[in-house]
Amino acid sequence: MRHKNRKNRPKSEANAPKAKKLKIDLFGAHAVQEAWRNPQRFIHALYITENALKDFDLAPDLKRPDPTIVQKEELDRALAPGTVHQGLALSCQPLEETGVEDLIIRSSAHPKSVLLILDQVTDPHNVGAILRSACAFGASGLIMQRKHAPEPKGILAKTACGAVEHVPIAYETNLTRTLEKLQEAGFTAIGLDERGDEQVLAKSDHGKIVLVLGAEGPGLRRLVKEQCDILARLPMHGPMPSINVSNAGAIALYALAAKV
Amino acid sequence: MRHKNRKNRPKSEANAPKAKKLKIDLFGAHAVQEAWRNPQRFIHALYITENALKDFDLAPDLKRPDPTIVQKEELDRALAPGTVHQGLALSCQPLEETGVEDLIIRSSAHPKSVLLILDQVTDPHNVGAILRSACAFGASGLIMQRKHAPEPKGILAKTACGAVEHVPIAYETNLTRTLEKLQEAGFTAIGLDERGDEQVLAKSDHGKIVLVLGAEGPGLRRLVKEQCDILARLPMHGPMPSINVSNAGAIALYALAAKV
Repeated sequence: MRHKNRKNRPKSEANAPKAKKLKIDLFGAHAVQEAWRNPQRFIHALYITENALKDFDLAPDLKRPDPTIVQKEELDRALAPGTVHQGLALSCQPLEETGVEDLIIRSSAHPKSVLLILDQVTDPHNVGAILRSACAFGASGLIMQRKHAPEPKGILAKTACGAVEHVPIAYETNLTRTLEKLQEAGFTAIGLDERGDEQVLAKSDHGKIVLVLGAEGPGLRRLVKEQCDILARLPMHGPMPSINVSNAGAIALYALAAKV
Repeated sequence: MRHKNRKNRPKSEANAPKAKKLKIDLFGAHAVQEAWRNPQRFIHALYITENALKDFDLAPDLKRPDPTIVQKEELDRALAPGTVHQGLALSCQPLEETGVEDLIIRSSAHPKSVLLILDQVTDPHNVGAILRSACAFGASGLIMQRKHAPEPKGILAKTACGAVEHVPIAYETNLTRTLEKLQEAGFTAIGLDERGDEQVLAKSDHGKIVLVLGAEGPGLRRLVKEQCDILARLPMHGPMPSINVSNAGAIALYALAAKV
């Protein structure tokens, strides 16, 4: 369909419509592979390069559409400049929405569990990395504010390396109200705050915990912070006691995982 | 100097040399501010927008060149597309090089200290985030292999948020030999490896520790791994037990910091 030598292309074709741009929801090796393997995920199309197909598990037991072989450049054109897609992309339906009530019901069978709330953390790289850590340390769900949070696809899903398929994400309107509901259901809310107590994370041995993280800089909003049962601080005593929010989340999840 | 309307530009000027491109070593609010405040850092020029200047501490006690006020677009042009410079950039000398011997001498006065070795971790975002955590948790230095490591400027320095000015970085030729030197000086080498022991980080109470991190995926190279005294594993039991290397580093630094 495309002319190898653009200079020789007939002039009349210069104004012809461009090749149809692919509609892509997920990209990147792990994000696409895990979605493909997830029976809950309805998939419209897999766009994949010959090369990426060699390492891809087509999971023949699942009813999936035939892969569409594409050139790397077609994926480049369909995504923002510089996007690292690794030769794989998926057009698919979002997973079914979940809510805090679902997360509470799911946790009711377990005496211990960890949920995560992100308050105003909006960078999809950070949210994705936090989701990946949540998955690795066995957290049962992630809750964000509907208004400001990135969707569970694209860069977020790429950075999460497939964790989007394993950790349920709930988008709620009011995080303070969400915290109240969780507390009524027996969760202890631990907020990460620079004025918190350094011993909390290392020593806390609560049954059900909801860990609350704010954005770098502003931190937790006042009402959210006031709703927390305990404020915890990371023991940072170096010359610049500040770290990336996804690193702070990973540390807190690790510290709690040892006790769940 | 530039014509507002490119269409009206005289043809003869089309081939004229472009406006001189700024030479930039550091960019981003924290990276530039911390370098500016660092008396060890020799600075050629500060390029800053009117807006960024409002929040900048000019540190009048230090002998520094007058700031050069620039437009945002001049910084955009001087850096890779999409670079987040926040309206500040610095042309400066690199800090004085350090080596593993220097790090050993510095640590000799302290009964406890933590050094970090990165084996084949090459992404400057990851190295920068690890350096930031190293700074926050009071690590005494970072060692990388000269051949593969990113330089302590640009994206690495931006992601490190100023930690480049506080944590000495040594570039060594042979990391196995470097580990030997550290062990001879009394350091215990703890390598992070998926086949390591889960209890090591939580329980280790050694005096001087060098923490060794490999790249995501391949992990530590064989010779480097064999040179370690102990292999430690993070207690990940979720459905996808794998996290970003900077998150793994942050967790290990946190776990050790509680004991140093």
